[in-house]
Amino acid sequence: MRFSKNLSITQLIEFCGPLVSSSAGPKEASVLNFQTPDSPEPGGFSFILSPKMLAAVEKSGAVCVLAPEKCKEAVTALNSKKAWLFSPNPELAARNIKNAFVLSTPYRDEATGVHPTATIDSTAQIAKGVSIGPHAVVGKNCRIGEGSFVGANAVIEANVIIKDHVTIHPQAYIGHSCEIGHHCEIMPQAIVGSEGFGYAHDHLGNHYRVPHSGRVILEDDVHVGAGTAIDRGTIEDTVIGQGTKLDNQCHFAHNLVVGKNGLFTAQFVAAGSTTIGDNFMCGGKTGVTGHITITDNVHVAGLSGITGNVTEPGQYGGYPLIPLKKHLKAKASEIHLPELRRQMAKVLRKLFPEDYQ
Amino acid sequence: MRFSKNLSITQLIEFCGPLVSSSAGPKEASVLNFQTPDSPEPGGFSFILSPKMLAAVEKSGAVCVLAPEKCKEAVTALNSKKAWLFSPNPELAARNIKNAFVLSTPYRDEATGVHPTATIDSTAQIAKGVSIGPHAVVGKNCRIGEGSFVGANAVIEANVIIKDHVTIHPQAYIGHSCEIGHHCEIMPQAIVGSEGFGYAHDHLGNHYRVPHSGRVILEDDVHVGAGTAIDRGTIEDTVIGQGTKLDNQCHFAHNLVVGKNGLFTAQFVAAGSTTIGDNFMCGGKTGVTGHITITDNVHVAGLSGITGNVTEPGQYGGYPLIPLKKHLKAKASEIHLPELRRQMAKVLRKLFPEDYQ
Amino acid sequence: MRFSKNLSITQLIEFCGPLVSSSAGPKEASVLNFQTPDSPEPGGFSFILSPKMLAAVEKSGAVCVLAPEKCKEAVTALNSKKAWLFSPNPELAARNIKNAFVLSTPYRDEATGVHPTATIDSTAQIAKGVSIGPHAVVGKNCRIGEGSFVGANAVIEANVIIKDHVTIHPQAYIGHSCEIGHHCEIMPQAIVGSEGFGYAHDHLGNHYRVPHSGRVILEDDVHVGAGTAIDRGTIEDTVIGQGTKLDNQCHFAHNLVVGKNGLFTAQFVAAGSTTIGDNFMCGGKTGVTGHITITDNVHVAGLSGITGNVTEPGQYGGYPLIPLKKHLKAKASEIHLPELRRQMAKVLRKLFPEDYQ
Repeated sequence: MRFSKNLSITQLIEFCGPLVSSSAGPKEASVLNFQTPDSPEPGGFSFILSPKMLAAVEKSGAVCVLAPEKCKEAVTALNSKKAWLFSPNPELAARNIKNAFVLSTPYRDEATGVHPTATIDSTAQIAKGVSIGPHAVVGKNCRIGEGSFVGANAVIEANVIIKDHVTIHPQAYIGHSCEIGHHCEIMPQAIVGSEGFGYAHDHLGNHYRVPHSGRVILEDDVHVGAGTAIDRGTIEDTVIGQGTKLDNQCHFAHNLVVGKNGLFTAQFVAAGSTTIGDNFMCGGKTGVTGHITITDNVHVAGLSGITGNVTEPGQYGGYPLIPLKKHLKAKASEIHLPELRRQMAKVLRKLFPEDYQ
Repeated sequence: MRFSKNLSITQLIEFCGPLVSSSAGPKEASVLNFQTPDSPEPGGFSFILSPKMLAAVEKSGAVCVLAPEKCKEAVTALNSKKAWLFSPNPELAARNIKNAFVLSTPYRDEATGVHPTATIDSTAQIAKGVSIGPHAVVGKNCRIGEGSFVGANAVIEANVIIKDHVTIHPQAYIGHSCEIGHHCEIMPQAIVGSEGFGYAHDHLGNHYRVPHSGRVILEDDVHVGAGTAIDRGTIEDTVIGQGTKLDNQCHFAHNLVVGKNGLFTAQFVAAGSTTIGDNFMCGGKTGVTGHITITDNVHVAGLSGITGNVTEPGQYGGYPLIPLKKHLKAKASEIHLPELRRQMAKVLRKLFPEDYQ
Repeated sequence: MRFSKNLSITQLIEFCGPLVSSSAGPKEASVLNFQTPDSPEPGGFSFILSPKMLAAVEKSGAVCVLAPEKCKEAVTALNSKKAWLFSPNPELAARNIKNAFVLSTPYRDEATGVHPTATIDSTAQIAKGVSIGPHAVVGKNCRIGEGSFVGANAVIEANVIIKDHVTIHPQAYIGHSCEIGHHCEIMPQAIVGSEGFGYAHDHLGNHYRVPHSGRVILEDDVHVGAGTAIDRGTIEDTVIGQGTKLDNQCHFAHNLVVGKNGLFTAQFVAAGSTTIGDNFMCGGKTGVTGHITITDNVHVAGLSGITGNVTEPGQYGGYPLIPLKKHLKAKASEIHLPELRRQMAKVLRKLFPEDYQ
């Protein structure tokens, strides 16, 4: 990807600040492209996260490479003609360079003030610098803060509070009375504030929807993935904590309270009234049952099923959930089950010949 | 949550009818709020479903508590100063109070007749009392019944029949020729009548989509969750039976026939041409294979995989599906597999020292 | 389903070309309906895929039946009064008849040129014969090829290339700079080109979204199911190969490269940077981890979890993934685990009475 302008290596170093702690090689060149470590294209900037990639990137067309500090010695031995920048966090440094000089996130399309085809209730309060896309709908008494963006065909129902610098992508839905914190990003077709799946029942087996009068509160810096749905609370609120990021097609049921800085991978499901602590991380397709509590700093492998409280921080996996190492062993054992049964039959015949044939 | 008006305890009792069978304590107070059993807020109404919550609710700020009939004796022993209402079905009674005096379900935003920005084909028949939101689209020959609602940016394709008092939330999609029964509720971004995933193949491995000429029929009182997709039938119709409720992000493939009063939790998937009986219930992320039959009154734990006919009513779980109790035992045993293999190795060495080292 | 016109049996045979290799019985009748093999309705056309259905279809009301060539002898023995068409590929022949005379796929609603309520940027290039539905949005510099269709309330962001005869159904989303090949079909509320779930992290646990500057490339004849999301690449592109069909609610993460003619069933998830070969097929709810390679011609049972490279073509299942036959055996063994543990306890007591009680 082309940089928005040619960047000298000195400029890159300055831009990175403490994220580049030292450098090596010539500084005269300018870089034109942000590229993958194995790209043959000449004149570019690239980055690696592990010494394993050193040989590949040295052969690539890049003239400047960002690498982890621990690569320093190995780079000296290379006798490389490239410029090298060493970083205590090359992933973040590269991300910052890309964000500043290739493509800024969040991306906003059709962002040029309020589009004439948008339908905005006369009671809505729209701050300065807000963009609202074609055919978007903003309901009664909504408040949209400074610098926020509402994409094409998005629907914001009544009484929603959207704070500053929020990005609501096209076709997203925000249910009535919800609250979206500063700098949140709601991806296309995400659903914030759908009604919970809660019913009362009569003796004939009919189901009556319980009206969900709670809200969804997204604290600051929350990201909600495409197609992800967050149900509102029954009486109290469903809350997603500051800095937590949700991938695509996740489902958060009513009354969930999720902590800060979590990472929830695609097709996560949590049933209602569960509490999840800070810094939760999980792989794809993880399921969590209702009415349980998961403590802070819990990391869970994909395809797991969490059916009880998790009281100790750590790495886990499986359904039922167990410590990750045990889970990997148990998983690897499953294929041996038929063999184990054959062996058991043999053992039983030997030990108890009268009972087992 | 504030009630829409102050309610005397006598009014509450009257409103509940047979759902309050007796009461105790003072009747003079008025209640202002609908609140959780542990809320300290003074002056409110609350409800409990189990005697376990008695101590908490007695300490709460509520002046009036709705409780199961079986709590009567324990309440007498409390010497409480609150008003107590006893109910044969406190969940339903509380739901009805909330629905009448806090927030009515289904919630309808922007519901004020047909919005001027809606695009409605001139051949569509719109009954009286219908509301259609901004930028909604209603196709050729559609019929929308009395008191129904179509939310902002929803799309109703040609020849759809929407009966009376139906709520189609914003951004929902109804495919051509489908039929939506009385009092159905289609949540935001639900998809009713997408084409089935059915292909014919040639000898080169190319796939050709089979046109799906069947419809989706939702009988009366069906709810469809946010992001849930129901594919139309191939020749005959896909049918969801009366009173059945679907949670978010479920997938119902072509030709499925689902019975009455089912409860399908989030991220359910059923493949094509399966028949599911009445009163089916399942936990989240359940999968069902195609071309099978599941009898009435089957309840299935979450994360289950149903790969064959289920001919007996009852509680089940697991993949493959087995009776629930066995499933829970088998699940609990999985963690012991590696240990079992070590024990088997030891046993084999002892019994067959020549064959096993 | 009614045919669009009455068809003589001779016409049907002619239409099918080499897909009908021989016939039997009277040719005078006309057929009016396309119907299921067990339908009593008189005067229709039906088809069967297996000899097992012969008895049912012979009893049905159909006057003309399409059957596999291998049914020929059995049909002769029937002494049937129906017309019989024998085909080397009855599924494809029946599909072609339906597509031509019942309902053409893709179905297009509201397809009558560019609707006046659509919002189309003045820099977009729209070829002749393009239809764009109400309230659809087409961004800057987009190019839409001949005969393509954009449904109601769909959003196409800036710089998108849509080739010829593409169908974008209502409410679908195409992210900026993506490329949609000839004859692709994007179902309602599908999402092509959402941003990837990739973050850099600081030492405090904050997450910073990596801007995803890659595109999504759909090669020709790709179908994308309702609610399916395909994330754009980080630097390079996410690619879905020619002829590949994706069912509803699938998730394809950033940088995925998928081969030709695959069939991905509902709620498939693949994590980022994985490569999947040609002719991949999987059942519903399959999950694939990131950074692995799956070779051509791999078929996978539903509910599987693929966590490592698959280097040999073949049929697989389970999590971890193993050859299908072994998987089915291992699955069937799981229920016996508790029994196996009881037997082991008995064996250990017998063999090592001092160590086990």
